[in-house]
Amino acid sequence: MIDRISILGTGLLGTSVGLALRAAGFKGSIVGWNRGVEQGQVALKLGAIDSLATDAMEAARASQVTLVAVPINATLDFMEKLALVLEPDHLVTDVGSTKRVISETAARLYNTPERAAFLPGHPMAGKERGGAALGDANLFRGAVWLFTDDPTAKRSGQAIALVKEWREWVEKMGAKTLDLDAARHDELVAWVSHLPQFTATALSALLEEEVGDAPELKDVGGRALREMTRLGASPFSMWRDIAHTNTEAVERALLALEQRLAYLRENLRTPGLRDEFEQANKFRRE
Amino acid sequence: MIDRISILGTGLLGTSVGLALRAAGFKGSIVGWNRGVEQGQVALKLGAIDSLATDAMEAARASQVTLVAVPINATLDFMEKLALVLEPDHLVTDVGSTKRVISETAARLYNTPERAAFLPGHPMAGKERGGAALGDANLFRGAVWLFTDDPTAKRSGQAIALVKEWREWVEKMGAKTLDLDAARHDELVAWVSHLPQFTATALSALLEEEVGDAPELKDVGGRALREMTRLGASPFSMWRDIAHTNTEAVERALLALEQRLAYLRENLRTPGLRDEFEQANKFRRE
Repeated sequence: MIDRISILGTGLLGTSVGLALRAAGFKGSIVGWNRGVEQGQVALKLGAIDSLATDAMEAARASQVTLVAVPINATLDFMEKLALVLEPDHLVTDVGSTKRVISETAARLYNTPERAAFLPGHPMAGKERGGAALGDANLFRGAVWLFTDDPTAKRSGQAIALVKEWREWVEKMGAKTLDLDAARHDELVAWVSHLPQFTATALSALLEEEVGDAPELKDVGGRALREMTRLGASPFSMWRDIAHTNTEAVERALLALEQRLAYLRENLRTPGLRDEFEQANKFRRE
Repeated sequence: MIDRISILGTGLLGTSVGLALRAAGFKGSIVGWNRGVEQGQVALKLGAIDSLATDAMEAARASQVTLVAVPINATLDFMEKLALVLEPDHLVTDVGSTKRVISETAARLYNTPERAAFLPGHPMAGKERGGAALGDANLFRGAVWLFTDDPTAKRSGQAIALVKEWREWVEKMGAKTLDLDAARHDELVAWVSHLPQFTATALSALLEEEVGDAPELKDVGGRALREMTRLGASPFSMWRDIAHTNTEAVERALLALEQRLAYLRENLRTPGLRDEFEQANKFRRE
């Protein structure tokens, strides 16, 4: 039934979705749009999209499904604009890493019988660097693709069918779908995704300052250092909007880690250190 | 020239050295000793050692080179005991993760023409879990094996030759040798090894408490979470002595990270966040 998809934003995720759809056997057309034309041309060359649109609104209007794959604030802008031009037989979905603000916006502007449908989505997949050139048809294989849909949404029959079919495509791309409440989503990812990222950023920034120019660094640092700082390469452009839209939960998580590190520091020579290691071991056993 | 080596402690590192020596073509005998006999028998079964001694001192006396591969405090105990029974034609070396205390003890008890030689060593290799069963002939391949030898040591001619030959065996095991001052070693590893470990421990312990029993955890946590908590599985038994023998440097590093995380937390919505990401990106570019 879906035979025309538009992808607004052909960075790492948008390009990977185009490639994964093709690998999963999607035969319809895929039109791409990107704010900077260069990334769009890379996606085109890779075969992730069939054509590159110059007007995102027109591309969306001509599609049944529009995937918005840009940072969160830009996603919110698109949601406002698309709501004005799309019809009830159109589905918009996204890949944003926080979902509360996006779900609230969806409830305000979409998902009635007279309006277009919006399905908030979040594939738990990515790389520490972005860009179309890293696009990968297998990026979602084995990953979880979260949805924080509103169970009270009153959609048109066509929209309901589009949502169902899009979820099927997500599974054909190799992902496992999972439904979560949007507030619970944001709380959980603050702990298991945002806290690890901001910790890696702080650790990498600190090490750059303290030992960044130590000549022995390359030799002495092993696998532990590489792993614990890999996410230090993540771009600010993606994480800015996450920090802006999940601030309170991230603040709580960071403060809790600061306190935990202080406790460990004060107990380097007491039995408290053993308890911390045992608690940590438990997390990894499960 | 070296044709008899004893390995005191057949855990992950001791067993891996035995296997790596064999893989590198060492034809002499390797006698093992372990405090608990079970790990010794595993090492024997794997072919890492030829025989299992019941008396560590006797095994050491009958060898030219003794590798002490036990936690740091037990290493210091061995250093005291071995100094009493070994002769100037004997070399003792170790694998301890901190080197200042061990180097000080070596200067006090070893390395004169009338005494046995001691070469403080630290292979930058390991796994997040220990034990002979994980022993791996390739563990040191591509790794750096640090030495914090005393350049003013006055050794016998035989001891000088043993040190030279042992360093050659380390390179034949696939490691790159590197010489560092012991104090500089401990300062540097506090940043690039101990801080990452204690951060992973604190993060894992915190997550166990906050989300350890969340049913969605297994699905939502991705590669970032797995990587940032892998070291959470590290055993306390190994890290206790590191915390005890490098306390001040680790305290400084932990306090600096706490402050960095607090700064980041206070700047989630300011341009300060961009600067932190850029500083972190720089560390990973080098």
